[in-house]
Amino acid sequence: MTVTYSRRVADAGLGGFFHLLLRWRGSIYKLLYRELLIFTMLYCMLSIMYRFVLNGEQKRLFEKMAIYCDRYAELIPVSFVLGFYVTLVVSRWWGQFESVPWPDRLSALVGGHVRGGDEAARLIRRTLMRYVNLSGVLIYRSISTAVYKRFPTMEHLVQAGLMTAEELRQLEALPSSHNKFWVPCMWFELNSLRSQCMKLYSYDWISLPLVYTQVVTVAVYSFFLACLIGRQFLDPAQGYPGHDLDFYLPIFTLLQFFFYVGWLKVAEQLINPFGEDDDDFETNWLVDRNLQVSLLSVGEMYDSVPVMERDKYWN
Amino acid sequence: MTVTYSRRVADAGLGGFFHLLLRWRGSIYKLLYRELLIFTMLYCMLSIMYRFVLNGEQKRLFEKMAIYCDRYAELIPVSFVLGFYVTLVVSRWWGQFESVPWPDRLSALVGGHVRGGDEAARLIRRTLMRYVNLSGVLIYRSISTAVYKRFPTMEHLVQAGLMTAEELRQLEALPSSHNKFWVPCMWFELNSLRSQCMKLYSYDWISLPLVYTQVVTVAVYSFFLACLIGRQFLDPAQGYPGHDLDFYLPIFTLLQFFFYVGWLKVAEQLINPFGEDDDDFETNWLVDRNLQVSLLSVGEMYDSVPVMERDKYWN
Amino acid sequence: MTVTYSRRVADAGLGGFFHLLLRWRGSIYKLLYRELLIFTMLYCMLSIMYRFVLNGEQKRLFEKMAIYCDRYAELIPVSFVLGFYVTLVVSRWWGQFESVPWPDRLSALVGGHVRGGDEAARLIRRTLMRYVNLSGVLIYRSISTAVYKRFPTMEHLVQAGLMTAEELRQLEALPSSHNKFWVPCMWFELNSLRSQCMKLYSYDWISLPLVYTQVVTVAVYSFFLACLIGRQFLDPAQGYPGHDLDFYLPIFTLLQFFFYVGWLKVAEQLINPFGEDDDDFETNWLVDRNLQVSLLSVGEMYDSVPVMERDKYWN
Amino acid sequence: MTVTYSRRVADAGLGGFFHLLLRWRGSIYKLLYRELLIFTMLYCMLSIMYRFVLNGEQKRLFEKMAIYCDRYAELIPVSFVLGFYVTLVVSRWWGQFESVPWPDRLSALVGGHVRGGDEAARLIRRTLMRYVNLSGVLIYRSISTAVYKRFPTMEHLVQAGLMTAEELRQLEALPSSHNKFWVPCMWFELNSLRSQCMKLYSYDWISLPLVYTQVVTVAVYSFFLACLIGRQFLDPAQGYPGHDLDFYLPIFTLLQFFFYVGWLKVAEQLINPFGEDDDDFETNWLVDRNLQVSLLSVGEMYDSVPVMERDKYWN
Amino acid sequence: MTVTYSRRVADAGLGGFFHLLLRWRGSIYKLLYRELLIFTMLYCMLSIMYRFVLNGEQKRLFEKMAIYCDRYAELIPVSFVLGFYVTLVVSRWWGQFESVPWPDRLSALVGGHVRGGDEAARLIRRTLMRYVNLSGVLIYRSISTAVYKRFPTMEHLVQAGLMTAEELRQLEALPSSHNKFWVPCMWFELNSLRSQCMKLYSYDWISLPLVYTQVVTVAVYSFFLACLIGRQFLDPAQGYPGHDLDFYLPIFTLLQFFFYVGWLKVAEQLINPFGEDDDDFETNWLVDRNLQVSLLSVGEMYDSVPVMERDKYWN
Repeated sequence: MTVTYSRRVADAGLGGFFHLLLRWRGSIYKLLYRELLIFTMLYCMLSIMYRFVLNGEQKRLFEKMAIYCDRYAELIPVSFVLGFYVTLVVSRWWGQFESVPWPDRLSALVGGHVRGGDEAARLIRRTLMRYVNLSGVLIYRSISTAVYKRFPTMEHLVQAGLMTAEELRQLEALPSSHNKFWVPCMWFELNSLRSQCMKLYSYDWISLPLVYTQVVTVAVYSFFLACLIGRQFLDPAQGYPGHDLDFYLPIFTLLQFFFYVGWLKVAEQLINPFGEDDDDFETNWLVDRNLQVSLLSVGEMYDSVPVMERDKYWN
Repeated sequence: MTVTYSRRVADAGLGGFFHLLLRWRGSIYKLLYRELLIFTMLYCMLSIMYRFVLNGEQKRLFEKMAIYCDRYAELIPVSFVLGFYVTLVVSRWWGQFESVPWPDRLSALVGGHVRGGDEAARLIRRTLMRYVNLSGVLIYRSISTAVYKRFPTMEHLVQAGLMTAEELRQLEALPSSHNKFWVPCMWFELNSLRSQCMKLYSYDWISLPLVYTQVVTVAVYSFFLACLIGRQFLDPAQGYPGHDLDFYLPIFTLLQFFFYVGWLKVAEQLINPFGEDDDDFETNWLVDRNLQVSLLSVGEMYDSVPVMERDKYWN
Repeated sequence: MTVTYSRRVADAGLGGFFHLLLRWRGSIYKLLYRELLIFTMLYCMLSIMYRFVLNGEQKRLFEKMAIYCDRYAELIPVSFVLGFYVTLVVSRWWGQFESVPWPDRLSALVGGHVRGGDEAARLIRRTLMRYVNLSGVLIYRSISTAVYKRFPTMEHLVQAGLMTAEELRQLEALPSSHNKFWVPCMWFELNSLRSQCMKLYSYDWISLPLVYTQVVTVAVYSFFLACLIGRQFLDPAQGYPGHDLDFYLPIFTLLQFFFYVGWLKVAEQLINPFGEDDDDFETNWLVDRNLQVSLLSVGEMYDSVPVMERDKYWN
Repeated sequence: MTVTYSRRVADAGLGGFFHLLLRWRGSIYKLLYRELLIFTMLYCMLSIMYRFVLNGEQKRLFEKMAIYCDRYAELIPVSFVLGFYVTLVVSRWWGQFESVPWPDRLSALVGGHVRGGDEAARLIRRTLMRYVNLSGVLIYRSISTAVYKRFPTMEHLVQAGLMTAEELRQLEALPSSHNKFWVPCMWFELNSLRSQCMKLYSYDWISLPLVYTQVVTVAVYSFFLACLIGRQFLDPAQGYPGHDLDFYLPIFTLLQFFFYVGWLKVAEQLINPFGEDDDDFETNWLVDRNLQVSLLSVGEMYDSVPVMERDKYWN
Repeated sequence: MTVTYSRRVADAGLGGFFHLLLRWRGSIYKLLYRELLIFTMLYCMLSIMYRFVLNGEQKRLFEKMAIYCDRYAELIPVSFVLGFYVTLVVSRWWGQFESVPWPDRLSALVGGHVRGGDEAARLIRRTLMRYVNLSGVLIYRSISTAVYKRFPTMEHLVQAGLMTAEELRQLEALPSSHNKFWVPCMWFELNSLRSQCMKLYSYDWISLPLVYTQVVTVAVYSFFLACLIGRQFLDPAQGYPGHDLDFYLPIFTLLQFFFYVGWLKVAEQLINPFGEDDDDFETNWLVDRNLQVSLLSVGEMYDSVPVMERDKYWN
């Protein structure tokens, strides 16, 4: 369920993006609140331990560790690696959206080339458009968890009217263990649709290298592990610089958490836009819309063109 | 009303971009002055409170907080995240402009292929071009607030001569709840125009992930919240380093505000270029221009080619 | 007059780019020397005022201001915003170059399809190629100051042999207030050429958002305003750290000026490459070259193909 | 063997990318553990030497060196150069994947244009598809170590049924010393396939400039060489700041190692995706899949289209 | 002579890119050793002067200057501007490679469309392919120093069998002063080849703006000029912080030199890839390869297709 807010940001007025901070669905709060709670709890546990459990000598050791952690946490270039990584993920995300196949072009072509108002012609037109939709659904089943849940078996596709029992039989009779999303394209020679599906398949198959994702994750997580200790409030009596005001909670560290982990969440949401995140592509909606529009285009709308009349500016 | 200043920057002379600082329409001042006023007022209120309201002990606490805020405000990588985010928004903005459909190609094709000087041929040519424009306006109505305000109902399109009452009836009779911008393309098989409209529709539908926008907004706003306290002038008698000169207003913090929030405003303006900002695409102008040019192309200009004569360099 | 130095950098030998520093035309010195002089003069005026005009107390105040300015100047992320902005401008600059229309393809097509050696065929071929060139010049007139100066009125185009008086009459008789560069394309159905011209027109119409340019300019200018005070040499007797060596001129600040304002000048030069900067596209040369090459291609060169003979490696 | 984890990151739930840290195949641990061991051993050797071998004066010298190294290691902009370099490598990596030739389009075309159910037609269809696959395998043999190991000689291609002995004879009889991957394309005029192969050949031939790779490698390695000494724990009795807590192992330096060298490993893995890394393209799988699918498409599937019947939404 | 090392980096094993550091051809050492020697010599001269020539007072002045230079050298954002500039140069470099014209497609088309085994047909086929190669060589002569050295006059092209004397006569008889690389394309209507050549011509004509290159060069050179003084070892007796260990040579400054100037060398090498650097495109090899392959394709290989036989998987 994609979160659309184009209308809210049409004009750059007072506040501008500020209004966007007040939304829940698809928001950073909804994505982050659990991680934030866990981080806060761990922080408080350490804080309580330091304040009430440790004895003097242990406190001194803890203070040294805190200063050490704080100093070295700065060395982790979190924003750098996140900037480059998220840019990459976003460009793949848009590339995936551009690879989503639409049946619209084909319905116009089918309507224009398979002529005739009799049942035979209508059967051909509708069947061809069904193949187009079927090919899309087959690829969605293999990449989108939402579509897969809707059609857990191929039998569901038959029940949903996307394929006939005979077509399913033929598809399954095909002696190949590879993904068969392209088979309906063979029944109708749909090469450009097939290329779109192939691209989606490739994006799904060739993930961003695991190492890159791990490097980024390690950077962010280790930064906040270091902060857990390094940003503890230390006994002001020891006179450590910057430790003279006790906020109980480290407001700015929580802001940083909000900020960096939120940035990482952008990547987590976009890296596979065919899941069920608030902001993922609505594949099931696409399936319905495409079937409806394409059957409509070659069915009811076939050759139903408005009568031409003179326009307002004729003379 | 797009702000065009290409002519002003044709030559890189003395001052160069400096002249651009003296404009109001579409300028950073016009976009920012309200936010800047609010920030300044809040800053002054805190400043007055610190100077005249708080007692000695409260002042000491406030000073500690100010130093704390100042130190941690530095940790928020505002310029980093803005750089990457604005680059992304700008590339989408240009992508959207490149998806704006122009009827020019089609008017040449219609003029070249629908031959005949009689009224029937003229009717076809003009009707086809009207469909082209209608399709564009239908998509604009759903993405551009300016065009929507101009044509709040479909009836307005009929009155404006963009569609006939009969066409409207057919369009509304169509049993589909999805956006119908593509229907006039079916009446005329306009596949490339349809793709352009589809792209605009997609850009409108698939916003940049809300989380990314929120992360950036949180970064900028929390930075300046921290600055509100952290950049207060503190009593020089306390000997805090860097607090020995009282400017009453924090000039450089205001400059930073100008700079960072201005950068964010670039994103706010561009993220949906179909609004009514000074710098948004002039969709209404486009509607008028396209209708005029396309009716002209297939009407008056039909087959009116200048007589050929020898050019100046003939021999 | 584009500055071409490809040949000078063909090999990465000793010094390499160093040789490029010794050029004047299109160089950073030529673009910057006036700004640099102004900056130096203002700096010296402030320096003289501080050294000879101010009394002791005023000096102390000035010193505080200088230290304050120096500290906060660091906070302006000039290199960051310049890096992203210039990258954007450079990509638009190259996009504009790639949109420049060339008549070469069309001259080959016209030569190949409008067959016949008699005068009638020759007239058609030359007229068609003239239309191609005319369309280009019409768009250049509206975006390039250099071409506009050369052809200040449409009459000049007739005198230059780019259009006939009859064609001009028809063009002007057209009842449209919009840019008419596309009209010759209608006389000949030149859709790909028309798209190229349309792109140039769009780049000219849709400038980079003014706010972005202003943000960058404000950042650079305010940085150097802060430097004017902040980089003054202060009385060593006061013992300010880093103020124990009097260079009279702040060499490194001038270097930074050279560097940052030079980077901004890159943007100023490229943001509209159709002006008359040293490094702008040579539109007038293009007009001449294209007219000559296209008339030549369909005129003298028509069907003049060398006699075929066996090549050297025949056996 | 590409590492696909799209399904694991479909939803951005609690932990998100955290789960990915627990994988071994294709992981950062598998790639790094040897380098990490070597680094740790060298670090420990230096540490032992400093603690137990050196005398007092030598210790003082070592301490000075450590502080010196630590200070200057900061000056190496490792994250900067890695960010730009890896971005470049990633874009080439995806460009290479997009150049991988697929026979799918061609099998549909061959099936649609080489008509006839008799053996002669079948022979043509299968032979043409075999040429398509052969061309792909020839280019893989020259760029992919995995495919080369599978088919060390051209004779192996004959045994694998990808070419006939006669075809091999003709190929070898060709008097050219250049790569002959394009020859089967000549037998069948496969220009788009040939372009794809040519692109793969180009990516293989034109590596990223060696100097760029060396600059990045030197930056990373010299940074960690400096760290080997600079991050040693120094005798706290000497009172060096930041040296009051002895961890025996420098946890944060190891984290940095993990992080920076991991980032470099991303580049090492992607710079040639046709090797045998865990995350390289599975060229051998591609060879098998393509041969099977293309023979199937023009063989068993030829003209076997399901009987058309009314769909579920007929009325 | 392009330096290809794809095979060496096929697998990301232990060491990985480390092996690449041991190469000489095309390496950073080969490009840099002269600059490094000059820098080291200048450094040593200053060092000797400071240690043995200057008297006490002069030494104090020198020390102040060194500290001043060291402090301000940090302000030059060398890595920032290099990162953006090199990214730009690399993208142009690859753009240039993608514009290199290949005759392969055309040879397949010529072989497929100019039918006939007699001498006349063969003459046409070979002549057409020769034109293709000739057009490429003409553009190389004007952009590549290596090809220009090989064919210093047009007469050399005749001797090399790339054009006949008659063709040269016609080419020279053409009354145009502009580059004539496109003339052979007119003899044969080669529009896509012509576009490729035109692109190469444009890249050569429209260099990156000189100012940008100068800005980058000034940044790098002035940084190291500042380092020459600022990184001198100062008398430890004066107690300057960080000056207590005398290395005689500033190891880390040399590393930085290696690193930054190496990065600049990447740009120097790539900015014109048609020179004679180790890593430039091998244009002469291209000329030979293309002529051989294209004559072969339409000559010996004409209609020599292997006899079709059943493949291994027939049943």
